[in-house]
Amino acid sequence: MSVQPRLRDLGITIGALPTGPGNAITDVTGVAVGHVTLSDGSAQTGVTAIRAHPGHPFRDKLPAAAHVLNGFGKSIGLMQVAELGTLETPIVLTNTLSVGTAATALVRHMLAETPEIGASTGTVNPVVMECNDGAWLNDIRGLHVSEDDVLRALQSVGPSVVEGNVGAGTGMSCYGLAGGIGTASRVVTRGPRRYTTGALTLCNMGRMEDLRIDGRPVGRQLVERLAAEKAVKQTDGREQGSIITVVATDAPLDARQLRRLAVRAGAGLARTGTHLGSGSGDIMLAFSTAEPLPHAMPDDPEYPRRSLHEDALDGLFRGIIEATEEAILNALLAARPIVGNKKRRRRSLAEFADLIAGG
Amino acid sequence: MSVQPRLRDLGITIGALPTGPGNAITDVTGVAVGHVTLSDGSAQTGVTAIRAHPGHPFRDKLPAAAHVLNGFGKSIGLMQVAELGTLETPIVLTNTLSVGTAATALVRHMLAETPEIGASTGTVNPVVMECNDGAWLNDIRGLHVSEDDVLRALQSVGPSVVEGNVGAGTGMSCYGLAGGIGTASRVVTRGPRRYTTGALTLCNMGRMEDLRIDGRPVGRQLVERLAAEKAVKQTDGREQGSIITVVATDAPLDARQLRRLAVRAGAGLARTGTHLGSGSGDIMLAFSTAEPLPHAMPDDPEYPRRSLHEDALDGLFRGIIEATEEAILNALLAARPIVGNKKRRRRSLAEFADLIAGG
Amino acid sequence: MSVQPRLRDLGITIGALPTGPGNAITDVTGVAVGHVTLSDGSAQTGVTAIRAHPGHPFRDKLPAAAHVLNGFGKSIGLMQVAELGTLETPIVLTNTLSVGTAATALVRHMLAETPEIGASTGTVNPVVMECNDGAWLNDIRGLHVSEDDVLRALQSVGPSVVEGNVGAGTGMSCYGLAGGIGTASRVVTRGPRRYTTGALTLCNMGRMEDLRIDGRPVGRQLVERLAAEKAVKQTDGREQGSIITVVATDAPLDARQLRRLAVRAGAGLARTGTHLGSGSGDIMLAFSTAEPLPHAMPDDPEYPRRSLHEDALDGLFRGIIEATEEAILNALLAARPIVGNKKRRRRSLAEFADLIAGG
Amino acid sequence: MSVQPRLRDLGITIGALPTGPGNAITDVTGVAVGHVTLSDGSAQTGVTAIRAHPGHPFRDKLPAAAHVLNGFGKSIGLMQVAELGTLETPIVLTNTLSVGTAATALVRHMLAETPEIGASTGTVNPVVMECNDGAWLNDIRGLHVSEDDVLRALQSVGPSVVEGNVGAGTGMSCYGLAGGIGTASRVVTRGPRRYTTGALTLCNMGRMEDLRIDGRPVGRQLVERLAAEKAVKQTDGREQGSIITVVATDAPLDARQLRRLAVRAGAGLARTGTHLGSGSGDIMLAFSTAEPLPHAMPDDPEYPRRSLHEDALDGLFRGIIEATEEAILNALLAARPIVGNKKRRRRSLAEFADLIAGG
Repeated sequence: MSVQPRLRDLGITIGALPTGPGNAITDVTGVAVGHVTLSDGSAQTGVTAIRAHPGHPFRDKLPAAAHVLNGFGKSIGLMQVAELGTLETPIVLTNTLSVGTAATALVRHMLAETPEIGASTGTVNPVVMECNDGAWLNDIRGLHVSEDDVLRALQSVGPSVVEGNVGAGTGMSCYGLAGGIGTASRVVTRGPRRYTTGALTLCNMGRMEDLRIDGRPVGRQLVERLAAEKAVKQTDGREQGSIITVVATDAPLDARQLRRLAVRAGAGLARTGTHLGSGSGDIMLAFSTAEPLPHAMPDDPEYPRRSLHEDALDGLFRGIIEATEEAILNALLAARPIVGNKKRRRRSLAEFADLIAGG
Repeated sequence: MSVQPRLRDLGITIGALPTGPGNAITDVTGVAVGHVTLSDGSAQTGVTAIRAHPGHPFRDKLPAAAHVLNGFGKSIGLMQVAELGTLETPIVLTNTLSVGTAATALVRHMLAETPEIGASTGTVNPVVMECNDGAWLNDIRGLHVSEDDVLRALQSVGPSVVEGNVGAGTGMSCYGLAGGIGTASRVVTRGPRRYTTGALTLCNMGRMEDLRIDGRPVGRQLVERLAAEKAVKQTDGREQGSIITVVATDAPLDARQLRRLAVRAGAGLARTGTHLGSGSGDIMLAFSTAEPLPHAMPDDPEYPRRSLHEDALDGLFRGIIEATEEAILNALLAARPIVGNKKRRRRSLAEFADLIAGG
Repeated sequence: MSVQPRLRDLGITIGALPTGPGNAITDVTGVAVGHVTLSDGSAQTGVTAIRAHPGHPFRDKLPAAAHVLNGFGKSIGLMQVAELGTLETPIVLTNTLSVGTAATALVRHMLAETPEIGASTGTVNPVVMECNDGAWLNDIRGLHVSEDDVLRALQSVGPSVVEGNVGAGTGMSCYGLAGGIGTASRVVTRGPRRYTTGALTLCNMGRMEDLRIDGRPVGRQLVERLAAEKAVKQTDGREQGSIITVVATDAPLDARQLRRLAVRAGAGLARTGTHLGSGSGDIMLAFSTAEPLPHAMPDDPEYPRRSLHEDALDGLFRGIIEATEEAILNALLAARPIVGNKKRRRRSLAEFADLIAGG
Repeated sequence: MSVQPRLRDLGITIGALPTGPGNAITDVTGVAVGHVTLSDGSAQTGVTAIRAHPGHPFRDKLPAAAHVLNGFGKSIGLMQVAELGTLETPIVLTNTLSVGTAATALVRHMLAETPEIGASTGTVNPVVMECNDGAWLNDIRGLHVSEDDVLRALQSVGPSVVEGNVGAGTGMSCYGLAGGIGTASRVVTRGPRRYTTGALTLCNMGRMEDLRIDGRPVGRQLVERLAAEKAVKQTDGREQGSIITVVATDAPLDARQLRRLAVRAGAGLARTGTHLGSGSGDIMLAFSTAEPLPHAMPDDPEYPRRSLHEDALDGLFRGIIEATEEAILNALLAARPIVGNKKRRRRSLAEFADLIAGG
């Protein structure tokens, strides 16, 4: 697959902080991402899996928290994350109506890896999040994602992240263009410490006219261009999409702090122009890889942990805002033109290089 | 199936308010309940379906709200209920690891009933809640619930509620005894108005020693009795279970008020003696049948609704506390002695009639 | 002041766990409590101050969390506690309309102790909670509490807790009787660790008929007794009161875990019989004295902390449920008969020793 | 007072929706705003009062909801707003350490207007919100705001809104410049209905380098300009400020929908460039003037209300995002250069007209 340019390749830099080596969520050591893409006629959908650390996700849980900016969505697993502050499975992204299938597959995956679940210990909390690709490109009523697709996505995870309309992003639309998966990262230093924070976004929100690139109203120019070409057609003008943002950091944040971090991803989202429509389920999930929490309680119920002073959060907040904004734009740039269900089309932002560059 | 006595048949009355005609959640007109029971050797589990009103659940939604007393659980659908304040599918209860399967089946059920979902309108939010029957009686790793079981439960709903270890309650344990499904209702009047409120509980929580019946420490007596008989064995002494409480009312409450009502169910739960263990996911979901909300927006976006003055909530609060406490005790009384996975057993509270009666 | 008997002196034990040496919140080392009582004719109100640890509350903050069981209340400070997970002032309790005065006094107290606040660092978050003593005994419109009263309460804190209608509890009513301040504690062991958890309640809720003592329906008996005496008169039959519960523990809980602990106090409350009326603001605030968090960030933003495994919470949950239930009953027993605003009266539970004892 | 140009006078339009006649929160009929400004040497602070409707605020309450984007703040009254979904007093804004004084004054104001409070009915929930003007311009330790100042602000409310460093905004800093009060409004139509939504912001957040005006990085240009002039000095580079946003609408939203509206104000805030620093308490409070809710319950506890279909929210969401962004920029433009505590200075954005205009 030839590689599309990313935002920085076009000379556009979001914010001021340095990126990690890959400018991706996988710059956070141990994070791995994989896709299974289903792209065949009316079936334009898929699965994206995110493994949060290389250890056993259930036996060594990670601190985690979610922020529900708009709860018009069908995710599973976030209630327990909110209560216990931990993530105990890989994260799976898919289309809205395939959440049940993905949850079952993720349960099977965890049962296979973990004989004690449901036997000598309790159950497991699968985390699956979704966007609705059925509003335009995918025949979502077809329930095309199988449990096997989910298992294959889980097995395919690795350190490089393919962006654009792949995996769960295959049939997604964003600002009236082809949408999907994007990622970015930032590095902040504080005293002797250096932390990497990354975002991965599943982008399926926004109306074309609202798109902003680093503050510039590129969407309005796009609408004019396409009106002149008599080319664009959106579903019904409502913002229906949704966006899922997964945030990883190697800073030792606890669940409360991770929720605060997740909240800030919303500011990066807002800067791309969306008005957070009623129908757009906007969810952020953040985890820290710094120190796993053991599932099994030792004889001494206390154990030492590293903690981050609250005043050190500001740099991380700035980083996740920048990374989220850039991840969304990277998704748009990487997505290729696509024809899906009922011959509906979405064009690629990359086709409009002159507008992006500020022409 | 011969009918077990219910709590009132034993001369025990919880609280002071009158019950509805069936002392069941189905006293709220239009509510219907059905079970599919899977009870065969190591498979001791099932499905319970609750239809909230006889109309189309998606096209005519009901105001709804959840309260998460303890979020150590794997339910799906509550995030959107919290955001939009509406219920748009039947409610399905099952075991923890079958939530994905139940969600998929519920989606299929809704797609079949509703051609516009995922086509000319958005997606649908399946509500599935669960308890963990794998801690003792059910081989939960077997994933014994099929999509067809869920569809059969949805088709079987009716106005009478079978209680005890049936449906989703088949393999549940409660206070160290056979647990499962229970129900009760209360009627309150306020000026010219008369409202019915009902609870259905899926009971899987509590340690035997903690059980209280109308305040009396029956659990401690049970422990003594069984110790003398050298009979009881619990898993590991931890409170791992969970309880789901579904609350229906015909009073015209909005989502905010329904959340307040759901919170009070927790007081009924507390009075049965549980200490709300860390591992016990305790969730309440409440809905009002008074006035459905239309899915489709009319030309005029405003429409009239009936509203209940906040000061009229007190009677409803008292009612749901009484009904929840009684529903739990009804579940215990109706559950029959059971042998399940690995020949593990649970006895029935009904075997100890002398203790219940205050002897 | 002669000492009233406490619940245990009457032979009634709530639950099974051992108490701390004083069966009081001050069994948690470092916690100190003080009262200023204003009892003169129509003015029946006051202030209770709780110092959470002997160190500087702002420079060395404590992990803390609140649970709002019913938000019909006018507390100040809980929003920041929820966001940052820390307590940085003593806690002040008073009547509803004096919260502003108490907050200003607490700010003055903190400014005097802490020259850097509002100068070289940010501001301070005063925590003040309240119940409405104006429903019956106090002329709350008189705004009788002065800033000086609050400062005197802060200065008077010590290791012994006077219970009953003193301090903020002076004009409170509970289950139709004289209410006020009560306390209790529990000790739990887990492996090599031993933790003390205590509750202090400001009790102003409940209708007489609902009162339960260790499960027994003493309230119904009281109503009958008083009806026979033609003696009782309540305001208007609505549950209007409110209850504030302050929870202290020396276990190393973080803010998320402290919220979970605070939630369980609600179960202790429920067991005393209240139906959590719409007008009753029921708030719990929990803090841990195990390890203060430094206000100032060191050069290295990371520091080590002790953490408690989640599975170790169950004992603490049981402890706080028991302690809260007992604290409420201790408040009722300690409160003396009182005549207040408009010659309104409340009798003392202690007058009905025969009913309490189960006669 | 000569009138400063507002953003639109400079030819800059935020978004696409039309404004109300005054482009102010008072375009929502019945809303009135008043200021008391304390500007004398080291005392640079004040009070802003917002009356939500011309009726009696307690007897006829308005539906209301708050969104806490960052809870690092000391507001009072929001807990009850969250529980009951109503506003029952005017809203008062002031500095952080004067919240107690303002609450007491607001209580006195309500007691004077409402003899039944604390007598024949319950208490009253004063709503006071704040930002910290002590970080730079005001001697906040001086507690300069008196109860009388608050009462005067309440008495001074009217239909025109003075913007800039007046009232509660007197000593506020925003993006390293003089900050304070700004306002804007938008009108949306939906079928036969026409709704006005307005925002009033108390602006005290942001670092200069982050400021964006309609997407353009004006802040970076400002920093360069001032560096060349060797002119600027900020406190310590941390984002410490806070922003309060009050949202009014005449659309018939219930409390749940108002919370959703309040959430969107955060997107307008994000577009002005702030990274939502840990120390910046960012709170939104929204109310609807469409239909008051009566305090007293009639004999029939049900009453009819108008309700807005959820799909009609999108226009309102877009409107409040635009209005909030514009209100913040209006505040910056209206604020005059100021010298405060310790001779510290803030310059006015209006001094840099060439940069604002895109030069």
